[in-house]
Amino acid sequence: MPEFHFEDFAPGSIAQYGPRMVTREEIVEFAAEFDPQPMHLDEQAARASMLGGLAASGWHTCALMMRMICDWFLLDSASMGAPGVDEVKWLKPVRPGDALTLRRTVIDTRISNSRPEMGFVKFRYELVNQSGEVVTTLTCPAMLRRRVPAQAAS
Amino acid sequence: MPEFHFEDFAPGSIAQYGPRMVTREEIVEFAAEFDPQPMHLDEQAARASMLGGLAASGWHTCALMMRMICDWFLLDSASMGAPGVDEVKWLKPVRPGDALTLRRTVIDTRISNSRPEMGFVKFRYELVNQSGEVVTTLTCPAMLRRRVPAQAAS
Repeated sequence: MPEFHFEDFAPGSIAQYGPRMVTREEIVEFAAEFDPQPMHLDEQAARASMLGGLAASGWHTCALMMRMICDWFLLDSASMGAPGVDEVKWLKPVRPGDALTLRRTVIDTRISNSRPEMGFVKFRYELVNQSGEVVTTLTCPAMLRRRVPAQAAS
Repeated sequence: MPEFHFEDFAPGSIAQYGPRMVTREEIVEFAAEFDPQPMHLDEQAARASMLGGLAASGWHTCALMMRMICDWFLLDSASMGAPGVDEVKWLKPVRPGDALTLRRTVIDTRISNSRPEMGFVKFRYELVNQSGEVVTTLTCPAMLRRRVPAQAAS
């Protein structure tokens, strides 16, 4: 039985996880496969770009956040998937050597009307680097099974 | 000089690119690194999940779309990056063997107030499988240099 259910995410609650180090090698590897823009692949090209130096693809940053979310609590939760993403903001570059901490705020929760055995939890994540800068924010809903589905109709 | 600038994306214009085949191996490889939920890793676990069979991580689908966008036009454009993502909807599973086509609609364009040498182009992407189902939608702004910056102040 997973540890975390819908009821475990109280609106307004804040928690954090990390840090997770980022290497130059993984930044370049992801970019080569999914986002081969020079600013994500090559230090010299990146210095000439608006990023001012090699930085991770924004999609790589999202994928890293997803892995942190998995390792932190999602793999031990009664997750029923996610319908999508409400918003991502890439605010600052993610650099080789960064140590990233993930801060999670529960924005809102509600029980599903059509499927009372589950509920929606809206999360807002802020990815923070070693200098305390918020580098990326991610707002997204998740579907989680309720711990006590027998009380669904109450 | 890149082929595509801000002026090349007319509001309302629609274009498409693909198809791009998706393999079981790449679905599992991405999931193992970034989203190791059983439904993205293991056929049997996936059949028991709400996905009804192995399906790509939603973040993998986003990364595949980004690669298609790069190969299609972004690497040959005067791109100045992107501030984030307005919305992603994961509507249907992406399966091994799927052949995915990317449809792009230009929603809106505007010249930057603070940086008249560039403009914002809001794109809406629909990723369509071989059965004609829209599996994912992605709405996101991009920043692109104008072709004729000398006329910025006109």
